[in-house]
Amino acid sequence: MPALPSHRRPAPFDRFWFGAPYYPEHWNAAEREADPPLMAAAGVNAVRMAEFAWDLLEPVEGRYEFGFFDEAIERLGRHGISTFLCTPTAAPPRWLTAEHPETLRMNADGVPLQHGSRQQCCHQSELFREYSRRIVRAMAEHFAGHPHVVGWQTDNEFLCHFAECHCPNCQQAFREFLRERHRTVERLNRAWGNAFWAQTYRRFDDVLTPRPHKPTWTNPAQHLDYFRFLSWGVTRFQHDQVEILRRVNPKWTIFHNGLFGHIDYRGAFARDLDVLGYDNYPFFDPDPERRPRSQAFGLDRARGWSGNFIVPEQQSGPGGQGSYFHDQPEPGEVRRMAWTSIARGADSLLLFRWRTCRFGAEIYWCGILDHDNVPRRRYEEVKRLGGELKRVGGELLGTSVHVEMAVAQCDQEVFDAHSILNLGLAGPGQVAERIHGAAFEAGYAVGCIHPADDLRGVKCYVIPHWALFHPDWVEPLRAYAAAGGVLVVGARTATHDWNNNHIAEPSPGVLRELCGVAVAEYGRQNRPDRRTLELELDGQRVATEGWYETLEPAAGTDVLARWTSRHLAGQPAIVCRSEGAGKVLYVGAYFGEALIARLLPLWARLSGLQPLWPGVPSGVSVVRRDKPGAQYWFFINGTDGERRIEKVPAGTELLTGAHAGADWILPPHEVAIVKT
Amino acid sequence: MPALPSHRRPAPFDRFWFGAPYYPEHWNAAEREADPPLMAAAGVNAVRMAEFAWDLLEPVEGRYEFGFFDEAIERLGRHGISTFLCTPTAAPPRWLTAEHPETLRMNADGVPLQHGSRQQCCHQSELFREYSRRIVRAMAEHFAGHPHVVGWQTDNEFLCHFAECHCPNCQQAFREFLRERHRTVERLNRAWGNAFWAQTYRRFDDVLTPRPHKPTWTNPAQHLDYFRFLSWGVTRFQHDQVEILRRVNPKWTIFHNGLFGHIDYRGAFARDLDVLGYDNYPFFDPDPERRPRSQAFGLDRARGWSGNFIVPEQQSGPGGQGSYFHDQPEPGEVRRMAWTSIARGADSLLLFRWRTCRFGAEIYWCGILDHDNVPRRRYEEVKRLGGELKRVGGELLGTSVHVEMAVAQCDQEVFDAHSILNLGLAGPGQVAERIHGAAFEAGYAVGCIHPADDLRGVKCYVIPHWALFHPDWVEPLRAYAAAGGVLVVGARTATHDWNNNHIAEPSPGVLRELCGVAVAEYGRQNRPDRRTLELELDGQRVATEGWYETLEPAAGTDVLARWTSRHLAGQPAIVCRSEGAGKVLYVGAYFGEALIARLLPLWARLSGLQPLWPGVPSGVSVVRRDKPGAQYWFFINGTDGERRIEKVPAGTELLTGAHAGADWILPPHEVAIVKT
Amino acid sequence: MPALPSHRRPAPFDRFWFGAPYYPEHWNAAEREADPPLMAAAGVNAVRMAEFAWDLLEPVEGRYEFGFFDEAIERLGRHGISTFLCTPTAAPPRWLTAEHPETLRMNADGVPLQHGSRQQCCHQSELFREYSRRIVRAMAEHFAGHPHVVGWQTDNEFLCHFAECHCPNCQQAFREFLRERHRTVERLNRAWGNAFWAQTYRRFDDVLTPRPHKPTWTNPAQHLDYFRFLSWGVTRFQHDQVEILRRVNPKWTIFHNGLFGHIDYRGAFARDLDVLGYDNYPFFDPDPERRPRSQAFGLDRARGWSGNFIVPEQQSGPGGQGSYFHDQPEPGEVRRMAWTSIARGADSLLLFRWRTCRFGAEIYWCGILDHDNVPRRRYEEVKRLGGELKRVGGELLGTSVHVEMAVAQCDQEVFDAHSILNLGLAGPGQVAERIHGAAFEAGYAVGCIHPADDLRGVKCYVIPHWALFHPDWVEPLRAYAAAGGVLVVGARTATHDWNNNHIAEPSPGVLRELCGVAVAEYGRQNRPDRRTLELELDGQRVATEGWYETLEPAAGTDVLARWTSRHLAGQPAIVCRSEGAGKVLYVGAYFGEALIARLLPLWARLSGLQPLWPGVPSGVSVVRRDKPGAQYWFFINGTDGERRIEKVPAGTELLTGAHAGADWILPPHEVAIVKT
Repeated sequence: MPALPSHRRPAPFDRFWFGAPYYPEHWNAAEREADPPLMAAAGVNAVRMAEFAWDLLEPVEGRYEFGFFDEAIERLGRHGISTFLCTPTAAPPRWLTAEHPETLRMNADGVPLQHGSRQQCCHQSELFREYSRRIVRAMAEHFAGHPHVVGWQTDNEFLCHFAECHCPNCQQAFREFLRERHRTVERLNRAWGNAFWAQTYRRFDDVLTPRPHKPTWTNPAQHLDYFRFLSWGVTRFQHDQVEILRRVNPKWTIFHNGLFGHIDYRGAFARDLDVLGYDNYPFFDPDPERRPRSQAFGLDRARGWSGNFIVPEQQSGPGGQGSYFHDQPEPGEVRRMAWTSIARGADSLLLFRWRTCRFGAEIYWCGILDHDNVPRRRYEEVKRLGGELKRVGGELLGTSVHVEMAVAQCDQEVFDAHSILNLGLAGPGQVAERIHGAAFEAGYAVGCIHPADDLRGVKCYVIPHWALFHPDWVEPLRAYAAAGGVLVVGARTATHDWNNNHIAEPSPGVLRELCGVAVAEYGRQNRPDRRTLELELDGQRVATEGWYETLEPAAGTDVLARWTSRHLAGQPAIVCRSEGAGKVLYVGAYFGEALIARLLPLWARLSGLQPLWPGVPSGVSVVRRDKPGAQYWFFINGTDGERRIEKVPAGTELLTGAHAGADWILPPHEVAIVKT
Repeated sequence: MPALPSHRRPAPFDRFWFGAPYYPEHWNAAEREADPPLMAAAGVNAVRMAEFAWDLLEPVEGRYEFGFFDEAIERLGRHGISTFLCTPTAAPPRWLTAEHPETLRMNADGVPLQHGSRQQCCHQSELFREYSRRIVRAMAEHFAGHPHVVGWQTDNEFLCHFAECHCPNCQQAFREFLRERHRTVERLNRAWGNAFWAQTYRRFDDVLTPRPHKPTWTNPAQHLDYFRFLSWGVTRFQHDQVEILRRVNPKWTIFHNGLFGHIDYRGAFARDLDVLGYDNYPFFDPDPERRPRSQAFGLDRARGWSGNFIVPEQQSGPGGQGSYFHDQPEPGEVRRMAWTSIARGADSLLLFRWRTCRFGAEIYWCGILDHDNVPRRRYEEVKRLGGELKRVGGELLGTSVHVEMAVAQCDQEVFDAHSILNLGLAGPGQVAERIHGAAFEAGYAVGCIHPADDLRGVKCYVIPHWALFHPDWVEPLRAYAAAGGVLVVGARTATHDWNNNHIAEPSPGVLRELCGVAVAEYGRQNRPDRRTLELELDGQRVATEGWYETLEPAAGTDVLARWTSRHLAGQPAIVCRSEGAGKVLYVGAYFGEALIARLLPLWARLSGLQPLWPGVPSGVSVVRRDKPGAQYWFFINGTDGERRIEKVPAGTELLTGAHAGADWILPPHEVAIVKT
Repeated sequence: MPALPSHRRPAPFDRFWFGAPYYPEHWNAAEREADPPLMAAAGVNAVRMAEFAWDLLEPVEGRYEFGFFDEAIERLGRHGISTFLCTPTAAPPRWLTAEHPETLRMNADGVPLQHGSRQQCCHQSELFREYSRRIVRAMAEHFAGHPHVVGWQTDNEFLCHFAECHCPNCQQAFREFLRERHRTVERLNRAWGNAFWAQTYRRFDDVLTPRPHKPTWTNPAQHLDYFRFLSWGVTRFQHDQVEILRRVNPKWTIFHNGLFGHIDYRGAFARDLDVLGYDNYPFFDPDPERRPRSQAFGLDRARGWSGNFIVPEQQSGPGGQGSYFHDQPEPGEVRRMAWTSIARGADSLLLFRWRTCRFGAEIYWCGILDHDNVPRRRYEEVKRLGGELKRVGGELLGTSVHVEMAVAQCDQEVFDAHSILNLGLAGPGQVAERIHGAAFEAGYAVGCIHPADDLRGVKCYVIPHWALFHPDWVEPLRAYAAAGGVLVVGARTATHDWNNNHIAEPSPGVLRELCGVAVAEYGRQNRPDRRTLELELDGQRVATEGWYETLEPAAGTDVLARWTSRHLAGQPAIVCRSEGAGKVLYVGAYFGEALIARLLPLWARLSGLQPLWPGVPSGVSVVRRDKPGAQYWFFINGTDGERRIEKVPAGTELLTGAHAGADWILPPHEVAIVKT
């Protein structure tokens, strides 16, 4: 049974897996023969296979053919390479949908999806679930005792590209989900506020999945439950498979590769797995200079769900499809991105993909090798990385990333609730990225943590604008502050109850007492240029954007900043209350870039937050992974220029084996790991 | 029987109703108990109720439950508050559409709408019409003798959000409408020009509603008839209800709350009602400085349809849904917007809504009270307004708004005809708003009047670019000019016949004689920066945009301006002809901002137009409502700064009771009403 | 049997047809009576008729009525005007689709198109094909011996507005096409790379037309085959008609009016016709100054498909529909555009349309005459043109346009392949237009030629970025270079095989040997501003955009330019290899404006390319049409200012009859044709 998900949880691997997704079904016999030694030379010890090979594994209904993969696994095994298999259910074979078109998903207009890309089948179709269980059972039983098969990936990138489904199967399943959640239709009517617009249901069977603009705005409580249902449904679908795999071979490591929307990667979905997988493609950020920062956020968020992870797909070349194609990574970037993933929580890593495929929709998702199979600089870089990981990888297992400042993240319900009624405001994820980015640039040991997770050691914890807020989170946050932490709560937090309805009390609702404040007035700033609202903090004015609140501090709550503009002038804007050894700040404004820049020093002052390793030049990030008795300091040069670090911690630099401690030169995109 | 619609018609109220839409079904017993006294304290004398309560009134088909509203009406009545009920047909209960999905509307792709928002049923479904009549009859009969029920609103915001429907019911109804309109299919073929693209129909049963891009451009005559059908259909649906209500209790006042597209609020729809309702939300204009101007236009246009109106929903807080949320009104703005509505034609006014709902799609349509039910500044403002209306409201009944300059407006067929073939040009409504806005800023007593309406007293009347033009309007316009008016006709006017086909004569067609001109050449200006076209007026050049025409003046017609650019150089651009005591101008260009700025002084000079009350500072608007023996001068400060008016009319200022006549200071957003 | 298509092929006309599409069914008897003499006065000798008149020709199924057109043809014939008839199948009558809705096309969502615009029927419906054959047979037989009927246009603008169809007929036909193309499903599986995403088909009957986003990216090989199928299907539909017409009267000239996407106008489609028709509307380019250049490209591309052409629709006034309306042509522009069409390959020309229609979706597609039927300046211009063509037109027949520099164009498969996987890069057509435009401005005799067409006389030939590349084209290109030509191959060329899969060798694949180069690395430049890549050519640096490649020259290949930026510094960017008497250049970058400006002089230097007639001022273009014994030099002033040409060729200027040779003044939009 895997440990409970937490951002601190290490992955349950006994070795650092390094390699690539591999699709032998795309290659001819000569290529398949030549690949394993070339992999082994690059330090590869694992591949992922059979991800989209259902057509090969079960070419005709009920006839299973495993010989091709038996051979491939065996051939790789001979070169010391283990295999993670995939349940191939993301790409159902044509015979399945040809015979059973009722298994196809349906968009909001009722148009069925079709064979010709992938992920066309509905997870709520009982029939498709049955086919899924059959192929998984057959594969599991066949590969049960295979010494080179070490684990499984479930399906592929659940809810990527297309999350919703409105097919008849989903109508039934949605009602099943609602019955389970609300028990009686009367409770559902109350929970959803169906008195509004005469939406009262007589019975669960009358409920439909919500479809936007049919003809107008949908019920936000219904819509949030629908998004919860998506998570519930995909979790149930995955559980079918996990149950079979665990029964057949309890030693297998099972993960899924994500992370996409509408799935609760902290809840039942993650608890069913040994470890989460995070497909990391930093080049979706088109700005090369911003990529180190955005990659760091992506990784910290990934870790925030349930701890260290495997990267089943790490960008190893440009990716592209249809109308986009990433930049080609410059020399050093692929390796730097991989090390960045490891520094921030990857306990195993596969570079997507071994070789670029010559056909299909992903011709331009480039792998380690190009279409022409000539090993070039990307291969050489991977080879260097493979060599390094042979020496260093295992040692990192069992460590956690050290975090001193965190931003609240990793709650799908909170994000979904915002998306339904976003009022044109940046979402809590976007705002968290702004705050994370500012802390990242400042050199703090920043991370993403869910409010219900373990906050020990965190000096400053920021909850951006979580309208949806669960009452159970209040006491842990109080305890966090009481123990000396600085808790920062942003405007609009806790304004919605868990059904996504508005609370009946002044905001911040359940956090009112802890924050020592009540919101008196709030407003959207649609044209902040026309009616600018400034607040004064530490004698300096800062313009705000998006949202303002005027605050009524309770007795004992201090006012840190006041509004200075228009009719708000003189009203409290930011307040602070002591809770035990710590402090609770409430910020009655939206976190825009300018405001964050002004608040970050304040938070640091109040919490004693310091850069993780002071004196590091701009462009170099520092991360630390700890385990009892050892600390691993990663210094990563995210720039294309050389950087000099005046002094690094005294210890051994693991990649070079050199003794570190004094000045250290980092060439472009270079990494150093000092063990202390 | 109500008086015929005209912009001058006062509403048939015997008292000024003031209050709010109220949804007791959203609140618990304690809240429902506490509301009436709080309302009464704010001067409320009316609420609107049961707008979306069909599920409560008829929870099971045929079982009516009126007790809840009996109680609510009674409780309010005890505090002197009357009730306007609503026919609740905008939100059909789930049992209706679950049993009868064939009543659902269908979009242009044939996708049925669904339960989960509102307005999902088709007005042309005979079955839905029958259900509508049943619930209305049941309610009408139950509340027939109730002393506190003073009137009704039909449905809610017809054709808001989604106007079209292409369901099978609509196919049938469209043919019924066409039969009624064209009598024979041969006449329909001719009227629609079906010789083009072989569109000839054999029989009415072959005609379909036009759906864009299926696969390409639709027939503009067919499309205009389809839009006319939408108006016809909704009018018929409403008539079902009005007929029942009038039969049960002829004393009830009946209105509808609009105003949305594709409905002819001058024709049968309005004649069925006692008075139109106009839901006024000025904050849809995101620019706070432009809002006084855009609100004024909205109100003048509303009044232009059929005279003074009730505002069943006046913005009392920010409104929002999905991805937008208005600004929070600043102190004084809610009251100022309400007084502006009254100054420009509201004879009763309800502030939307009593309290902000905590669930449903309109959580962020804020009411007088916030979610937490704490009376704050918006309540205080409303209370002040309520007190003022108790003193002043009744006196304003029976007055009309005084207009000296008007722009043609309020013809749905003209607007729909333009929308089908707009050629990328601003619509007649948009252009009218430009002209209205310029006149508003200049302080003229500006309004919106339909060409077939009463133009007495109007000094200058502008028809922007009404391609569709009815021949019956020519004689009244001639008479208007003959009596001394200045008539201005814009380019492209009268180029389409009433079927939306192009005329066979030189334009302006039926207006050619009256304007004394024929258009020789016209052209679209797609890149006015590349080939700028200027005309010279009074010795000064002005650049035009959008559209040009070269004119051939008839004998006796003067040339006021000539083109000076490119191949047009020397050609007449603006001409003027005398008709009796007045003048008719034809402007061979599109009314862009720059051209309007140059034309307005010319029009004023020719017509003797003066600001309604000269010497008023910028940002203050003046409106006058008149009745025999009394004039009410409204001075409204639309700015957030103090404004000094050098001199106001001598009389009593009604809000303060002070004697007016000399200087008057208007604080930000303040209003003064001088009776003379 | 018509000659094989080639850019050099003259049209098979024995006289220069000049006139207009004419729709007598839109006009009353008096108008129909008055039209022929007015046409004759303008020099008209041909009209096109019956294009959308199926409803008139077969008002009831099986009842044919030809009298109306008999009369019209006869009336025109009496004034010396011949008629091209149209098969009226682009606008099926209502009785057809009312009785047989299964003939309607279907969009990607499965929504059927409908009666009410045009082109609503599916070309793959066997039933619709049968109806099409019946009406064509009936018309052909009726008009078989008519002396004034000289030829036919098939249908109208195939695949305009809406190209795809996904109806059940198309599913069947697509499978038929695939069976014909791939023979066995195993071969199809290999050709499409169906091993990717488990897309393997068991049988042809399981294949579907590809629909985007159902739910995600489609297979690029399947998609290309689908686009090929569109061409195949429309060609088959047209062939049904051509076969009938040729059998009935082999002397008729048959053309189609295009040119729209997804049709191979070089292949079977064109070979079935005597000549292609190209509908030329230069005013779709909104920039008046760029129009001469963009019109020239459109015409050269049109000629590139299969030689000289007829223009069945030449813009004679502004065109518009729905939300757009072209500029009004200024005096001289209509005639200049017509002469430009003739200079660049039109062997006959009809001005769209005789008179502007007053009803239907194209009210604003203006013709020679306005809605009011008053002959104005556009008529006068056409009349002048008609007079000139009477003298000059016939003489131009049999000539070809002289080309010295050409850009590869006119391969629908290449363009479709790019569109499916465009990676956000400008398509080969767009890039060709850039190169063509630069050569046009430089005064070169530029044209568009397919690589498999006749390249004799061409000094420099550029293949922009043709990822899809057929191996059969290599040898002709080698021979072209060997004979002294300069061949320029752009980046990405020949990277896809004919199935649209990626090649397995280094690029440029089949061109590698001819170019003497292999591409080592490539990359997309998404933010060229952030990481600018420059190359150095002739000692000067030029910034590139879009795409870069580093090149490995083979022995004997020279490096002309090297990269100077970032990690590419020093790598070859442009190489050159001698092949016989000529040269082959490979350019490892995308052709952006800046790079083209730098390359054009290099290409000219290497190939000896000179302006066709040196010393011509900016804004004047020169074209030459040749036949044995005569050369016709067209000088066209594309500007609105007067232009002086220092010296023209010695000969007769045909429009004035003057002796030319010395200075020549071209007034705005004026044309001179010197015969030498």
